[in-house]
Amino acid sequence: MEKTSAYASAFTMNSSEKQETVCIFGTGDFGRSLALKMLQCGYSIVFGSRNPQKSSLLPNGAEVLSYSEAARKSDIIIIAVHREHYGFLTELTEVLKGKILIDISNNLKINQYPESNAEYLAQLVPSAHVVKAFNTISAWALQSGTLDANRQVFICGNDSKAKQRVMDIVRTLGLTPLDKGSLMAANEIENYPLQLFPMWKLPFYLSAFLCVFFFFYCVIRDIIYPYVNGRKDSTFRLAISIPNRIFPIAALTLLALVYLPGVIAAILQLYRGTKYRRFPDWLDHWMLCRKQLGLAALGFASLHVLYTLVIPIRYYVRWTMKNRTITQATAKREDPFSTSTAWLNDSYIALGILGFFLFVLLGITSLPSVSNMVNWREFRFVQSKLGYLTLILCTAHTMVYGGRRFLSPSSLIWYLPSAYIIALIIPCIVLVIKFILILPCIDNTLTRIRQGWERNAKPTLNGERYLKQSSVHMDSEL
Amino acid sequence: MEKTSAYASAFTMNSSEKQETVCIFGTGDFGRSLALKMLQCGYSIVFGSRNPQKSSLLPNGAEVLSYSEAARKSDIIIIAVHREHYGFLTELTEVLKGKILIDISNNLKINQYPESNAEYLAQLVPSAHVVKAFNTISAWALQSGTLDANRQVFICGNDSKAKQRVMDIVRTLGLTPLDKGSLMAANEIENYPLQLFPMWKLPFYLSAFLCVFFFFYCVIRDIIYPYVNGRKDSTFRLAISIPNRIFPIAALTLLALVYLPGVIAAILQLYRGTKYRRFPDWLDHWMLCRKQLGLAALGFASLHVLYTLVIPIRYYVRWTMKNRTITQATAKREDPFSTSTAWLNDSYIALGILGFFLFVLLGITSLPSVSNMVNWREFRFVQSKLGYLTLILCTAHTMVYGGRRFLSPSSLIWYLPSAYIIALIIPCIVLVIKFILILPCIDNTLTRIRQGWERNAKPTLNGERYLKQSSVHMDSEL
Amino acid sequence: MEKTSAYASAFTMNSSEKQETVCIFGTGDFGRSLALKMLQCGYSIVFGSRNPQKSSLLPNGAEVLSYSEAARKSDIIIIAVHREHYGFLTELTEVLKGKILIDISNNLKINQYPESNAEYLAQLVPSAHVVKAFNTISAWALQSGTLDANRQVFICGNDSKAKQRVMDIVRTLGLTPLDKGSLMAANEIENYPLQLFPMWKLPFYLSAFLCVFFFFYCVIRDIIYPYVNGRKDSTFRLAISIPNRIFPIAALTLLALVYLPGVIAAILQLYRGTKYRRFPDWLDHWMLCRKQLGLAALGFASLHVLYTLVIPIRYYVRWTMKNRTITQATAKREDPFSTSTAWLNDSYIALGILGFFLFVLLGITSLPSVSNMVNWREFRFVQSKLGYLTLILCTAHTMVYGGRRFLSPSSLIWYLPSAYIIALIIPCIVLVIKFILILPCIDNTLTRIRQGWERNAKPTLNGERYLKQSSVHMDSEL
Ligand SMILES: Cc1cc2nc3c(=O)[nH]c(=O)nc-3n(C[C@H](O)[C@H](O)[C@H](O)COP(=O)(O)OP(=O)(O)OC[C@H]3O[C@@H](n4cnc5c(N)ncnc54)[C@H](O)[C@@H]3O)c2cc1C
Ligand SMILES: Cc1cc2nc3c(=O)[nH]c(=O)nc-3n(C[C@H](O)[C@H](O)[C@H](O)COP(=O)(O)OP(=O)(O)OC[C@H]3O[C@@H](n4cnc5c(N)ncnc54)[C@H](O)[C@@H]3O)c2cc1C
Ligand SMILES: Cc1cc2nc3c(=O)[nH]c(=O)nc-3n(C[C@H](O)[C@H](O)[C@H](O)COP(=O)(O)OP(=O)(O)OC[C@H]3O[C@@H](n4cnc5c(N)ncnc54)[C@H](O)[C@@H]3O)c2cc1C
Ligand SMILES: NC(=O)c1ccc[n+]([C@@H]2O[C@H](COP(=O)([O-])OP(=O)(O)OC[C@H]3O[C@@H](n4cnc5c(N)ncnc54)[C@H](OP(=O)(O)O)[C@@H]3O)[C@@H](O)[C@H]2O)c1
Ligand SMILES: NC(=O)c1ccc[n+]([C@@H]2O[C@H](COP(=O)([O-])OP(=O)(O)OC[C@H]3O[C@@H](n4cnc5c(N)ncnc54)[C@H](OP(=O)(O)O)[C@@H]3O)[C@@H](O)[C@H]2O)c1
Ligand SMILES: NC(=O)c1ccc[n+]([C@@H]2O[C@H](COP(=O)([O-])OP(=O)(O)OC[C@H]3O[C@@H](n4cnc5c(N)ncnc54)[C@H](OP(=O)(O)O)[C@@H]3O)[C@@H](O)[C@H]2O)c1
Repeated sequence: MEKTSAYASAFTMNSSEKQETVCIFGTGDFGRSLALKMLQCGYSIVFGSRNPQKSSLLPNGAEVLSYSEAARKSDIIIIAVHREHYGFLTELTEVLKGKILIDISNNLKINQYPESNAEYLAQLVPSAHVVKAFNTISAWALQSGTLDANRQVFICGNDSKAKQRVMDIVRTLGLTPLDKGSLMAANEIENYPLQLFPMWKLPFYLSAFLCVFFFFYCVIRDIIYPYVNGRKDSTFRLAISIPNRIFPIAALTLLALVYLPGVIAAILQLYRGTKYRRFPDWLDHWMLCRKQLGLAALGFASLHVLYTLVIPIRYYVRWTMKNRTITQATAKREDPFSTSTAWLNDSYIALGILGFFLFVLLGITSLPSVSNMVNWREFRFVQSKLGYLTLILCTAHTMVYGGRRFLSPSSLIWYLPSAYIIALIIPCIVLVIKFILILPCIDNTLTRIRQGWERNAKPTLNGERYLKQSSVHMDSEL
Repeated sequence: MEKTSAYASAFTMNSSEKQETVCIFGTGDFGRSLALKMLQCGYSIVFGSRNPQKSSLLPNGAEVLSYSEAARKSDIIIIAVHREHYGFLTELTEVLKGKILIDISNNLKINQYPESNAEYLAQLVPSAHVVKAFNTISAWALQSGTLDANRQVFICGNDSKAKQRVMDIVRTLGLTPLDKGSLMAANEIENYPLQLFPMWKLPFYLSAFLCVFFFFYCVIRDIIYPYVNGRKDSTFRLAISIPNRIFPIAALTLLALVYLPGVIAAILQLYRGTKYRRFPDWLDHWMLCRKQLGLAALGFASLHVLYTLVIPIRYYVRWTMKNRTITQATAKREDPFSTSTAWLNDSYIALGILGFFLFVLLGITSLPSVSNMVNWREFRFVQSKLGYLTLILCTAHTMVYGGRRFLSPSSLIWYLPSAYIIALIIPCIVLVIKFILILPCIDNTLTRIRQGWERNAKPTLNGERYLKQSSVHMDSEL
Repeated sequence: MEKTSAYASAFTMNSSEKQETVCIFGTGDFGRSLALKMLQCGYSIVFGSRNPQKSSLLPNGAEVLSYSEAARKSDIIIIAVHREHYGFLTELTEVLKGKILIDISNNLKINQYPESNAEYLAQLVPSAHVVKAFNTISAWALQSGTLDANRQVFICGNDSKAKQRVMDIVRTLGLTPLDKGSLMAANEIENYPLQLFPMWKLPFYLSAFLCVFFFFYCVIRDIIYPYVNGRKDSTFRLAISIPNRIFPIAALTLLALVYLPGVIAAILQLYRGTKYRRFPDWLDHWMLCRKQLGLAALGFASLHVLYTLVIPIRYYVRWTMKNRTITQATAKREDPFSTSTAWLNDSYIALGILGFFLFVLLGITSLPSVSNMVNWREFRFVQSKLGYLTLILCTAHTMVYGGRRFLSPSSLIWYLPSAYIIALIIPCIVLVIKFILILPCIDNTLTRIRQGWERNAKPTLNGERYLKQSSVHMDSEL
């Protein structure tokens, strides 16, 4: 390695005198995009193609050769070809010996083939070092500058030196490599871009269940009952009135379900007297999808707000009000003004607005780019403290909404209470337990437990301690 | 390079025993900010200044010398001086020989000078290696920690070793370098920070056109016609009623224009029987600004929502309702309740709310930090599937809004149909074609084409294949 | 360092043949999370623990030894133990000699101990090189992939080689190191994660002051006065009517306070005739929290919008309108329609909507991930140009709201003008001064000053020039 005087500083060690050459098999969309990006980041690129002469419109500066010629030019070969066409590689086994093959392929369906594409490649060319990488990056993202796209590149492979080489490339491209272990992880990595919002499954089914349940509940109370009782056709309520009963209930229930697992966890820790035992799986999973639960709740709350704000422009409402006025005018009768009704009504609305405002604030703070800017204490302040405040406001909103009718037996229809009464059950439970948990005596014990103190700590070695995968974060910071 | 035993691991190769020294000419805002950042990232900094003694308040740890003395200390020199003052560099040609000069300058106007600043610098000091970099980073962003700012640093230059050195520096500062090729690209790089929302041009002009066109259309129908016909002064409608006709129309039309190019592209691909031919430029450009079109549509939709929600607090509306009530009360006449009107009215409102809700969801998903978190399939699910659902809901909202009057000749005024009828044309066309395109027989062909199959594929070599710059992304993932 | 032929390229220099081993003391939450991440990024990990046999559920591939054995395996040791338990390290002084100790600890309170944890560690083990790092990264963020978390790692230490090593590790983990200087900075770094929205302090107190002041102001005018004058109980106004007076005032005042410092700065620069003098501290601080002031203003504006939109569903409003209608119907009297009232009312509403729309746009642009995507000119266009437009619209909204009553003496109550009149003072001042400042003659001088021109520039060396810490950004770009 000769050094010109102008370049002679210790720092030059990690810049390269000679550009590294990387070979890409396949001149399709992904091959070309990756090549462009790598050229921009200082690599030399040589393509391997079935028809080197045909591929005329490739990124400037890239060479195109036949597969075997191209392979000879570099010890790193990116296979930008669909798995279905890997066949030709078997003929190149000789040239590919000892080389690093990067498998970047994706499938169309989850677990489409018995073995992962990368493992299949490793079987085809056993003499090479296969590394899985880049499959989660889209050609589009690469071309448009990766700013707008996920920067994380999952990597796996059996040869750690080969993985290091690939990780260096990933870093040079401005992406973040993440080693997932041996080639056995390839299956998981290949399934990753085929997933459809896995964390949203529980919130989705829960929301669907809540909606369906309360839909039938409200249909019985608001449509079937009036029909049975008075032959009144209230089906038009299906469009707005009933959704506007379901949405706030779903919102409040989901919001309470966001804070319920925290409370359960605390009880569990108090009961066990240690934080060093894993939570049951269901609790763990529940805790992990609290963000999604919260956002689903926010969605319902927003719908509730919109449905409420359109009330005065509804034909039904206008008609009712007009007729009531006309009746009274005809009867020359004026209602007296009731200050207490005004109070109840105004405070129920005000509570709702403030609750919704905080709700949106929680939502904004959970935007990745915002939560990146705040430190842990600030995030917890918003999500935990303001979150509970939101829950309190929304619960109070619902209670005051009930107003004088709240818990009054006259509102029972076929022994069914108003739907909003049911919606209050979980939030109230959560708030009561939380209130008990923050009593100083209990809170102190809990804090000590979370700082590592164990009630039954024995100096023996047989105490099992489990690795808590998911819920590590609040212990030391609290 | 001597190694102390404590540092002797292979990894240390890319850490430096000796800090690299970088020289910065100019102690202005940018020079100082860059120096501070580089010091924080482990570089030694020496400033070159006209008056080394005068510059007293520089970042801690930086040395200030005269230009020539400073230049001698390092082989990388950052020229943090405005182009207008580059003159003094000609006197330093001897010292600058073989050094790397980094040009970071910006201009005040696009194409202010015949040649780019970097090329001008290269002419002034031909014996040095000029590299363009850093001009898109603001002094402010550097100081406040680059968190809140664009991390991408465009680089160009004729000497690839020099570029590699600069790219290493960029990476060390935690930024992402992007090689744009030879110094000829400097012009483009210098123009970049002077651009004003280039992708928004088409959506902006389109929106402006739609607004102006429908403004006059509505003025004719709603203000001139009543005046001509009944001398009625309805000019006050200009403030709310007419905007609230224009905005939903603009929103719906723009939303349809977001999905129209996709449909045209599909037809084109079916017609050509291959994906390996470039789309016409206008289609390409259109596809690239769909995001902006969609966001503009969302903007109009939001305005429509706000304008609609204030309806009941408008004086005009209150007055009308009050008077209608009084008239009826005086006449002792009550309107009968019409369930079908209630149904129409409620479902039109409900459709609007749901459409708007999904609309906002699309908008949230297009926030860079959110789209970074989802994989390609999820992004497509939201943007394409939910996007079409939004279009369907919004179109239905508009149709039901028409209600019984829809397509009735009685609503013609001077042969002009209601504006909302015109707004329905493009959305309906898009939806009908899309519906045809997803019929299994057609869909299958399309999918095969997008996976690379060509209807007229000949094994000869004269088939031209074009590099599709912009629309690479959906082929393999579909 | 032997090289196999397949790996022999210049680029390999910065990839490692042998994985670097890092030692972690403490098998708690943070130690385990960091180990997992480092393993994924290609490091070998050896844990030091009090009970090596007990710690069974650690990340795959990590070794667990006693403290002294583990320390011997690596020259970098991460101390993942709470400060309270650092005691045991004194016994290891011999083994730790010359090693790099990374202190990652946090405290529970700001300035909990007289000296920072890192300095305390350095006193305990004086023979080692202590580097502070990683304390702002949470175990949770490390595990869940750092995507959703702050990537910035503050580093400080007295040995620059040691710092370089740590910075290399940080970069390898995909995080961004930021050197804060010597170990004396450790205190600041340790306090950082304990801060609670420091930039929000001024906006918060200001908002609180505005709210409280205008609360009492409105209570006097709207509740006490009617009570004293007519024994009318209007306390129910506390829930909605009065907040809906306070919020728009707070919003408008805060918005004006966002643009006031810019105007003051311009006057100061004009007066001084140079930009090379530091602004007074209060102005600097004010400028730095304009974003937070603006967001607080947006918060109040949103609340105002919600409070306004619910007006028609309030009991009080419905009751008032109904009764007024009944009275008129009984009296068989119809109000004539006033076009000018319709104009005033509609334009006041329309101005409010448009102002709010731009307000929200400003808010969206200030989301970190959005402001990252725009260049400096675009950001300034939105924040400065559209920002002033917002201020103009909101001010006009407030003025037209006053309508015919505006500045009429009849609206004085106990000599107190309506609250909204007071709210107009600061905005009008800002707008008037800004209007004067953009007169060409003044604007030209200002622009020249901001490009470095000095009115009293003397070629002598005694002119002091100050380093403007905070407000560097607009000079050259303007
Ligand atoms: C609109 C909206 C958006 C949201 N966005 C987010 C988001 O972006 N990210 C997010 O995480 N949440 C989000 N949430 C959910 C929720 O706000 C947070 O999870 C919040 O931190 C929960 O507060 P908490 O006090 O119940 O839980 P925590 O403060 O997390 O405490 C939970 C309880 O569980 C126990 N516990 C938890 N983990 C451990 C552990 N490792 N060891 C021992 N004990 C443990 C403790 O007893 C603790 O009290 C969102 C919610 C809403 C409504
Ligand atoms: C509020 C809002 C926000 C939006 N934000 C975004 C955003 O952030 N990012 C964004 O990209 N869009 C955004 N959009 C626009 C729009 O939702 C998406 O572009 C969406 O993917 C279009 O769906 P589609 O099914 O029409 O197009 P696609 O699913 O992209 O398909 C387009 C059609 O074009 C053809 N085609 C396209 N490219 C190719 C190619 N390379 N080769 C061959 N054929 C091709 C195919 O026939 C395909 O059916 C937004 C829209 C709205 C309303
Ligand atoms: C909803 C909302 C969100 C906002 N979000 C943000 C945000 O994300 N980020 C943000 O920064 N602001 C934000 N703001 C605040 C505000 O919009 C911006 O700060 C805006 O740039 C101020 O415009 P201006 O023209 O007054 O100031 P500028 O254009 O910054 O100019 C300020 C004036 O001060 C002087 N000056 C300032 N700095 C210097 C200097 N270094 N040297 C010499 N003179 C100087 C000049 O005279 C100049 O006219 C937000 C505001 C709102 C309402
Ligand atoms: N597009 C993306 O966004 C993306 C993202 C992640 C991963 N991937 C993966 O990248 C791989 C390539 O995807 P792509 O989008 O680039 O696909 P493509 O556009 O269809 O290109 C595939 C290329 O493979 C080559 N090839 C070799 N043998 C072939 C054969 N028998 N038939 C057809 N082509 C053959 C062809 O190049 P020659 O004509 O030069 O031989 C062809 O251009 C796939 O495994 C895909 O899963 C793609
Ligand atoms: N500010 C930014 O955010 C930013 C962003 C990207 C690019 N840039 C570019 O960086 C360069 C410097 O910008 P800046 O904001 O730092 O400008 P600045 O504050 O005005 O500083 C310019 C410096 O140039 C030096 N200089 C040399 N000869 C000069 C002369 N004849 N007259 C005046 N100054 C002379 C001066 O330093 P001495 O007194 O020490 O000689 C002066 O401090 C410009 O090209 C600009 O386009 C700036
Ligand atoms: N958790 C986070 O998110 C986070 C973030 C930044 C910084 N930190 C800092 O990292 C350090 C460790 O935090 P952590 O959350 O990992 O705490 P932790 O879970 O309580 O673990 C502390 C570990 O220290 C070891 N230790 C050594 N001597 C000890 C003693 N006398 N008593 C108790 N433990 C002893 C134990 O490991 P052995 O049993 O193996 O000896 C124990 O597992 C703290 O300084 C904390 O401030 C944590």
